[in-house]
Amino acid sequence: MNVENKTIVLLSGGLDSTTLLYHQLAQGDKVQAISFFYGQKHARELRHAESICSNLDVESTMFNLASIQGAFRGSCLTDTGIDVPADDGFYATKTITVVPNRNTVFLSIAVAKALSDRFNQVAYAAHASDYEIYPDCRPIFVEKFQEVIDVANQISIRIVAPFLHHDKADIVKLGIELGVPFEKTWSCYRGGAKPCGVCSTCIERNRAFEENGIVDPAL
Amino acid sequence: MNVENKTIVLLSGGLDSTTLLYHQLAQGDKVQAISFFYGQKHARELRHAESICSNLDVESTMFNLASIQGAFRGSCLTDTGIDVPADDGFYATKTITVVPNRNTVFLSIAVAKALSDRFNQVAYAAHASDYEIYPDCRPIFVEKFQEVIDVANQISIRIVAPFLHHDKADIVKLGIELGVPFEKTWSCYRGGAKPCGVCSTCIERNRAFEENGIVDPAL
Repeated sequence: MNVENKTIVLLSGGLDSTTLLYHQLAQGDKVQAISFFYGQKHARELRHAESICSNLDVESTMFNLASIQGAFRGSCLTDTGIDVPADDGFYATKTITVVPNRNTVFLSIAVAKALSDRFNQVAYAAHASDYEIYPDCRPIFVEKFQEVIDVANQISIRIVAPFLHHDKADIVKLGIELGVPFEKTWSCYRGGAKPCGVCSTCIERNRAFEENGIVDPAL
Repeated sequence: MNVENKTIVLLSGGLDSTTLLYHQLAQGDKVQAISFFYGQKHARELRHAESICSNLDVESTMFNLASIQGAFRGSCLTDTGIDVPADDGFYATKTITVVPNRNTVFLSIAVAKALSDRFNQVAYAAHASDYEIYPDCRPIFVEKFQEVIDVANQISIRIVAPFLHHDKADIVKLGIELGVPFEKTWSCYRGGAKPCGVCSTCIERNRAFEENGIVDPAL
């Protein structure tokens, strides 16, 4: 007999985390989603997250971390003094999208909510295309975060990152199989009325669709 | 030549973290304090924290985590449906004061702020009297949290917990040496106009002063 997992999914409203939501539902998990406002310029992603959950009848919670914006500076995603650059293929331009310690903060809050709600898993959509830029998406981070959570509370919560060894094209492929409504997802870091097409996440997203031989339905 | 440490101190306004603040200042650190509102019934501690910093001319920030109160349930410190019990000396009564994953959340936000402000340390006042009740105050937690922080970001932040192997009576002793104004600190979990004298933290605090042969100046 399979024991049902109860999973909190970190949902940004982008294509990775939306595919993750569909993936956990397809696994038969009881699922709830949580999202965060943390001063991101592309806060419009949160409306997408809410709409995706609403269509699936999945419970969702948006945590407003406006008060800790002052702890998330130095990134072009949050700092009004730093423009989101066009992707020039160089690491220095990309790393400016890193938000200090973001996944540790988000996952820690998710674990607290899992303990409060008697859920047993927290899932996030870290994937192999993230390794180079985001230290908190690497396998070593997931391993070490699990270890701290195992000792931080009387009851442990499992951290799952099923896309950890997949790239973004693999995620699009899985999303197609799962019927993910990509047109409802939002990725662009600039957060304008339409995706800018030139920031690092737009470039990466477009490439992932191209590799699957389709055009991004959000365009 | 000593390199100056820049340290963020987690300050609740209680006697342990206030003594820690004085301790880090005595070490010659550049110090800032951060405090959290997370729905605690004894939120009056925050006024004490602010007043203590103001007297020392130490920069302080209060992060309002009201929006994540829903992730911190099941504890008598936050749950209006659960009374803060009188301490009967039994573990079951005491553990009800545990707030899920609290230190992981607080320390993670502190690390984000340290990275944003180019500080190199985060200090918190975990101590040996806490081990039995609070898993996130044990040496193994500090060790594992340091490990995750070492891999989560490009720059690492040192987690320091100088009272980790001391009990509360040792902290009072050090506080006396450092001239900590104990009368300005707040511990009682019930958060009434005066300390209740019977909750677990009041009992522990009173005992620590007794062991030093003095009466708590806050009474």
